[in-house]
Amino acid sequence: MKNILGREMPEYIQGYGTVRPFKGALASLGVVQKKAVKLESAVPGEKKVVASIHEVIEKCEIKDGMTVSFHHHLRNGDHVLNMVLAELKKIGVKDIKVAASSIFPMHAPLVEHMKSGMVTGLYANYMSGPVAEAVSRGLLKYPAVMHTHGGRARAIESGDLLIDIAFIAAPTCDTYGNINGVEGKSACGTLGYAVPDAMYAEKVVAITDNLVAYPACPMEITQEHIDYVVQVDSIGDPKGIVSGTTKITNDPVGLKIAKMTSQVIEASGLLEDGFSFQTGAGGTSLAVASYVKKLMQQKEIRGSFAAGGITGYMVDMFKEGLFESLLDVQCFDLRAVESYRQNQRHQNMSASMYGNPHNKGAVVNNLDVMILGATEIDTGFNANVTTGSSGMIMGGSGGHSDTAAGAKLAIVVTQLVKGRLPIVVDHVTTVTTPGETIDVLVTERGIAVNPNRLDLMKKLEKTNLPILSIEALKEMAEAMTGVPEKIELDDQLVAVIEYRDGTVIDTVKKIKN
Amino acid sequence: MKNILGREMPEYIQGYGTVRPFKGALASLGVVQKKAVKLESAVPGEKKVVASIHEVIEKCEIKDGMTVSFHHHLRNGDHVLNMVLAELKKIGVKDIKVAASSIFPMHAPLVEHMKSGMVTGLYANYMSGPVAEAVSRGLLKYPAVMHTHGGRARAIESGDLLIDIAFIAAPTCDTYGNINGVEGKSACGTLGYAVPDAMYAEKVVAITDNLVAYPACPMEITQEHIDYVVQVDSIGDPKGIVSGTTKITNDPVGLKIAKMTSQVIEASGLLEDGFSFQTGAGGTSLAVASYVKKLMQQKEIRGSFAAGGITGYMVDMFKEGLFESLLDVQCFDLRAVESYRQNQRHQNMSASMYGNPHNKGAVVNNLDVMILGATEIDTGFNANVTTGSSGMIMGGSGGHSDTAAGAKLAIVVTQLVKGRLPIVVDHVTTVTTPGETIDVLVTERGIAVNPNRLDLMKKLEKTNLPILSIEALKEMAEAMTGVPEKIELDDQLVAVIEYRDGTVIDTVKKIKN
Repeated sequence: MKNILGREMPEYIQGYGTVRPFKGALASLGVVQKKAVKLESAVPGEKKVVASIHEVIEKCEIKDGMTVSFHHHLRNGDHVLNMVLAELKKIGVKDIKVAASSIFPMHAPLVEHMKSGMVTGLYANYMSGPVAEAVSRGLLKYPAVMHTHGGRARAIESGDLLIDIAFIAAPTCDTYGNINGVEGKSACGTLGYAVPDAMYAEKVVAITDNLVAYPACPMEITQEHIDYVVQVDSIGDPKGIVSGTTKITNDPVGLKIAKMTSQVIEASGLLEDGFSFQTGAGGTSLAVASYVKKLMQQKEIRGSFAAGGITGYMVDMFKEGLFESLLDVQCFDLRAVESYRQNQRHQNMSASMYGNPHNKGAVVNNLDVMILGATEIDTGFNANVTTGSSGMIMGGSGGHSDTAAGAKLAIVVTQLVKGRLPIVVDHVTTVTTPGETIDVLVTERGIAVNPNRLDLMKKLEKTNLPILSIEALKEMAEAMTGVPEKIELDDQLVAVIEYRDGTVIDTVKKIKN
Repeated sequence: MKNILGREMPEYIQGYGTVRPFKGALASLGVVQKKAVKLESAVPGEKKVVASIHEVIEKCEIKDGMTVSFHHHLRNGDHVLNMVLAELKKIGVKDIKVAASSIFPMHAPLVEHMKSGMVTGLYANYMSGPVAEAVSRGLLKYPAVMHTHGGRARAIESGDLLIDIAFIAAPTCDTYGNINGVEGKSACGTLGYAVPDAMYAEKVVAITDNLVAYPACPMEITQEHIDYVVQVDSIGDPKGIVSGTTKITNDPVGLKIAKMTSQVIEASGLLEDGFSFQTGAGGTSLAVASYVKKLMQQKEIRGSFAAGGITGYMVDMFKEGLFESLLDVQCFDLRAVESYRQNQRHQNMSASMYGNPHNKGAVVNNLDVMILGATEIDTGFNANVTTGSSGMIMGGSGGHSDTAAGAKLAIVVTQLVKGRLPIVVDHVTTVTTPGETIDVLVTERGIAVNPNRLDLMKKLEKTNLPILSIEALKEMAEAMTGVPEKIELDDQLVAVIEYRDGTVIDTVKKIKN
C-alpha cells in the first residue's frame, strides 16, 4: 500500500506488526489513552542498591524476547548501553530488543550482538556510526524502528513501545533512586529523554558513577519510579558526553544562508517581544542564531524562550536577556550544563513535554521559529534527515518532525548542492518530516516558500529576498550537478520510519553491497 | 463482617461499593497496576486560556454524576472549591462527587450543596468545620470516603478514585498551563497534593489569580497535563492560606511530654549522622523538634532530611545545617514558603512520592522518626485522629497512617487526659492508623512501647524513663476520669475510613441528635 505521501509500504511487517500509514501531520489528534503502568510496590526498609549490573539483571528477571531501554544523554561517551549488553551476553539471553533514544559510534559493540542474534530489534530516534551502517546492511533480524523524540515518548506512554527494563545512566543518584544529571564526573545536564522510560518501564534501574547519600539534590527523576540502583566505576567518557564548545560556521556560503534566514524571520513578523526560537548545534544553525541575536539587539526585542537541545550560544543569548527562559531537554555542551546547574530559569523538560503530540500541549507547539537541516528536501517540501546519498542510515528525526509540526515557522537551511549532489530533488530517498510541516527552504541560491503558506509568501515578496519556486531551485541544482542517478537498493526492508504519532511515514531499504 | 482489627463493617456499602477489609499494614504490597490515563491531545496553535469558570466547566462537558477534584494547599483560605461549586449550581448539575484533598471551615457553602443533592459524595484526607459536622449528621447522600495523603495518591493513580475534572488552584500559571505555588499574591509554596490530580484526571483546569506570560518559572506542574487555564480575581485569602508563624507550646505538660519524647529518640539509637525526622505543626510536636534540635547540636549530628508539611521551625533547623535537605509536600507557614522559593535543597515532592504505598518507594519509607498526635489511642496502639469525643468527624489521617507505616520509630505524643476524658482507651471510637505501625506512646505520666517492638523496649528499659504497659496508662487515666460512657451513635454509616492501600480500616457512624 501507499501512504498519503505516496510512499510504498507493506500492510504488515514481520517483527513490527500492522502498519498504520501516515495520514497527515494532525490526523491522529483527538482522544488517546496512555498505558496502564504495572510495577512492584516497595516494602518499607528494603534497600535498592544492588552490587553489580549482573546481579540487577537477574533481579529484574530478564528473559528472552524482552525490551531493554537506554537514554542518550551521554551521547558518544556512553558506557552504559555497552556494559549492560555485555552482561546480557554473559547471561546468555537472546532475541533482545534495544530501545535506545539514540545510537552513536561508541555503541559499535552492538553490531556483534546483532550478528549473534542476541539483539534482534532496535528502536532509536537517531543513529550514526557502525550500528547505523550494520542496520542498513541488513544485519538486524527485524527492521529497526525509528521514532522522533516526541514520538518515542508517545510510543512509550501509549504502550506501543513496551519496555521491560529501563537502564538509566545517572550522573548522580542517591541510595533510593533520586537522580540528577548536573553533579558528578559524568555530568551531562538535563535528562529529559530518560523520563518516559523511568515512568513507564516495568523495571527501572539507575546506573551511576556518583552514588550519594539520600536525598540527592536536585532530583530530576525521583525515587518512586526506580526499582534498583547500581554503582559502577564509570558511566561515560567525559570527552564524548558533551562537546567543549559549539561553533558558528566560518564558511561564506553557510553565513550567506544564515543571513538570508534571519531576513526571512524578520519579514515573517514573528520577531517581536515574546519571540521563541529553536535551532540545532550545527555551524549554519548557530550562524542563524547569531544574526537573529543582532536583530533582537537592534530592535530591543525580549524573547520568551529558546528550546531544545541547548548550546552555549543559546545560553549567551539567554544571559544577555534576549530570552526570559531556556527550556532544555538535553544540554549540548559544557556551557549549557553549567548554565542549567546554576540558573533557575534554565529549565528542564521531559521528552514528552518537549514533543509528544499525544499530550495536552508540548513545548514545540509554542515555538515561533525552528531552524532545521536536511540531507535532502523534495519538491513537496518533504525532508530527509535519516539516510545519506547512498541510502545509508546516518541520522534520524530526533526533534526534526516534532518541531516542524509545532513551530509557526519551520525553516530548512541547506546548501543547494553538497558533495556534487543536488539537495533539492523530486523525491527524497526517505521521508523523515512531511512537507506540510515545513514552511520555507533557504539555500544560498534562493528561497522557496511552501505553497500552503501564501500568507508568508506575500510577506516575503515585499522584500528583496530571492524567492523562487522549489521546482526552480531543483532545476538550478540539477543544472549544476546533472540529474543524479537513482540509488539502487535491495528489496529488504531494514527500518520503519514512524512519524511522531506512530503512523509509518516511510521505510528504509537495505543498501546493495 | 469484621476486619483484622475487629472493626465491624458491611460487605457492600451503597455509593461506595464492595468493601475490601483491612488485612495488615503491609498485606497489600506486591504487583500493582496504575490507571490508563485518557486525554484529549492538544492541537498546535490552540489556546488554553478560557474566559471564566462557567465557560471552562461547559468546555469540560460536565455531566450529572461526575467527580470533580481540588487540592488543599490554600487551606482555610481557599476560594476555588466554593467558586467552582457555585458555578456548578448555576449550571444545574446534580449527583456530583467532590474529591478534595482536605476540607476546611472555609468550605461551609458545601453543606448547602449536600443538602440540595447537588453534591452526593465526598472524598477527603482530612475535614474540619461545618462540612465535617454535616457529614457526621448524615447530610451527605453517600458515605464520605476518607483517605490518607499517600492513599489518595494511590487511589487516583490506580483508578479507584476516577476524577473527571480536576480544578487546580494555581498561585501562578502561564498561558499554556505551567504552574507554580511560589509566586503571586496567593503563594502557598509547594503543590504536592495536586500532582496526582493533574496527572490522572481526564480534564485538568488551572485556576489562577496570577496569569503570567509563557513560560512560567519555576514549573511544579507542567503544561502537558493541563487542558485549560482560567484567570480569576482571587484564588484565596492570604490570611487563611498560611499561618504567619507556627509556635512551640508554653504548656508545662506539653513541654514535659516533648522532652521525654526526645529522650526516647535518643535512646532508640536513631539519632546519628543521616538522621531523618518529621513532625506536625502542633505546639507539642514543635517542642519535640526543639529538644531534638538541642540534642543534635550537642552531639554535632548532621541529619539527612526533614519531611512532610514543612514549618518555619524545620526551616531553621535546616538553615543551621542540622539537615541536608527538606522534602516538602506542603508549606505550613510563610517562612517555609520563603525557604522553598529561595533554597534549592528545600525540595518539593508529590503526594505519591511522599506517601503512596503502591509505588517503588515513598519518602515515608526513609523516615527514622515520626512524631504523631492522637485524639484517642487504644491498648492495641490503634490511633484515632478522625473523630472527637462525641464521635464527630474533626480531622482525618492526612499523613498520619503513611508516616507511621514508613518510619522506623513512630511516636504518638499526647496528654493522658484531655477535657476530663481519658485518651488511652480499650477501643478507639474510630481507627485511623493501625497499632502495628505505632511504636511508642509518650504521655506526661508514662511511656508505653508497642509489644511488637521488644528491641526498643530493651533499649528504653536501660534509661530512667517511666516505661509502663499501655494497659497501666489506661488504668491511670481511668483512675483520674472514671471509665467514660460509651458514645451512643446511630446505625447509619456516614464515612468509610480507607487505609493507605485502599482497604477499609473502619467506618464512622452518624452522631445522634
